[in-house]
Amino acid sequence: MVKLLTSPSGKRLITYSYRGLRSFNKHQPRPKMALDHYTFGPHKIRSKEVFYSTHLSFAMVNLRPVLPGHVLICPRREVKRFADLTADEISDLWLTAQKVGSGLECHHKASSLTFTIQDGPQAGQTVPHVHIHILPRKVGDFEKNDEIYDAIDASEKELKKKLDLDEERKDRSPEEMAQEADEYKVLFS
Amino acid sequence: MVKLLTSPSGKRLITYSYRGLRSFNKHQPRPKMALDHYTFGPHKIRSKEVFYSTHLSFAMVNLRPVLPGHVLICPRREVKRFADLTADEISDLWLTAQKVGSGLECHHKASSLTFTIQDGPQAGQTVPHVHIHILPRKVGDFEKNDEIYDAIDASEKELKKKLDLDEERKDRSPEEMAQEADEYKVLFS
Repeated sequence: MVKLLTSPSGKRLITYSYRGLRSFNKHQPRPKMALDHYTFGPHKIRSKEVFYSTHLSFAMVNLRPVLPGHVLICPRREVKRFADLTADEISDLWLTAQKVGSGLECHHKASSLTFTIQDGPQAGQTVPHVHIHILPRKVGDFEKNDEIYDAIDASEKELKKKLDLDEERKDRSPEEMAQEADEYKVLFS
Repeated sequence: MVKLLTSPSGKRLITYSYRGLRSFNKHQPRPKMALDHYTFGPHKIRSKEVFYSTHLSFAMVNLRPVLPGHVLICPRREVKRFADLTADEISDLWLTAQKVGSGLECHHKASSLTFTIQDGPQAGQTVPHVHIHILPRKVGDFEKNDEIYDAIDASEKELKKKLDLDEERKDRSPEEMAQEADEYKVLFS
């Protein structure tokens, strides 16, 4: 639960409280924490575009999805390379990816999933913050399977361009992205 | 340590013993177990091609590597889809991928890594056993970054063809693959 408080200077403070005390096993997601924004490399992502989060990871909709349900999973901590993640972060990130991937595959009536990390600039990473691309796949969605990666690359370059220049979004409106995130929030609530 | 025993009927039995009792934290790899072969979908992979293993995962060299250090990480259990993996398997698989990826990036003097799972036939999976492709990346290794995925797809199809038909290996000899695995074993021993 998120509480908005006001400090003596009038500045808004956001605090978090857990929904009571529960015992969690090591693989059970911990209580979710909502933020006003999330950090993605040097950029801020509006919380309206984040549809699922744990204490270590978050899942967001994409500026230019290559296919319906093409989303990104990120660690909350700003970490450039996969090698920099702790064991707990790796575990949480991929458990989140499993949950989100399965949910979106079903939601979009797909039958397979593509998971990719472009880990470092020479692998096509544009935003220096680890992120997993997840894409629900269907028969015939791309004439040749590998063409999807051309599209992921183009999508990633567009994302970077948008975030860097804060250009007018020509691809998808913030409202459209928030609407998609709301649709997905229901799946994982 | 692997012990080869003979049963009363003369059939060979393989048993495993740990290198003494040690205490392990939850993220520390457990003792490695050597096998005469590993299971990869319906196929057997010679242990000489496996250069690193934990109690839940193993790392093997590739029949047709797209780039130097292109290897596959698999769960030991024959599991078709990523959604079928347990939390422990996911954690171990990706901790193994982190360790192997970092080691091979350094070994091959690369500067980035590509991690990909083609999860299901519509995503390009040819062998029905979860596997992570890891590829060390360098500046200019592919003219266009996304071309690497065409090559991964071609490589995966070749692997399937070889394993299905047990054709003569025209790409790399078993000796060459075992030699590469030996080279990598030293890195992770």
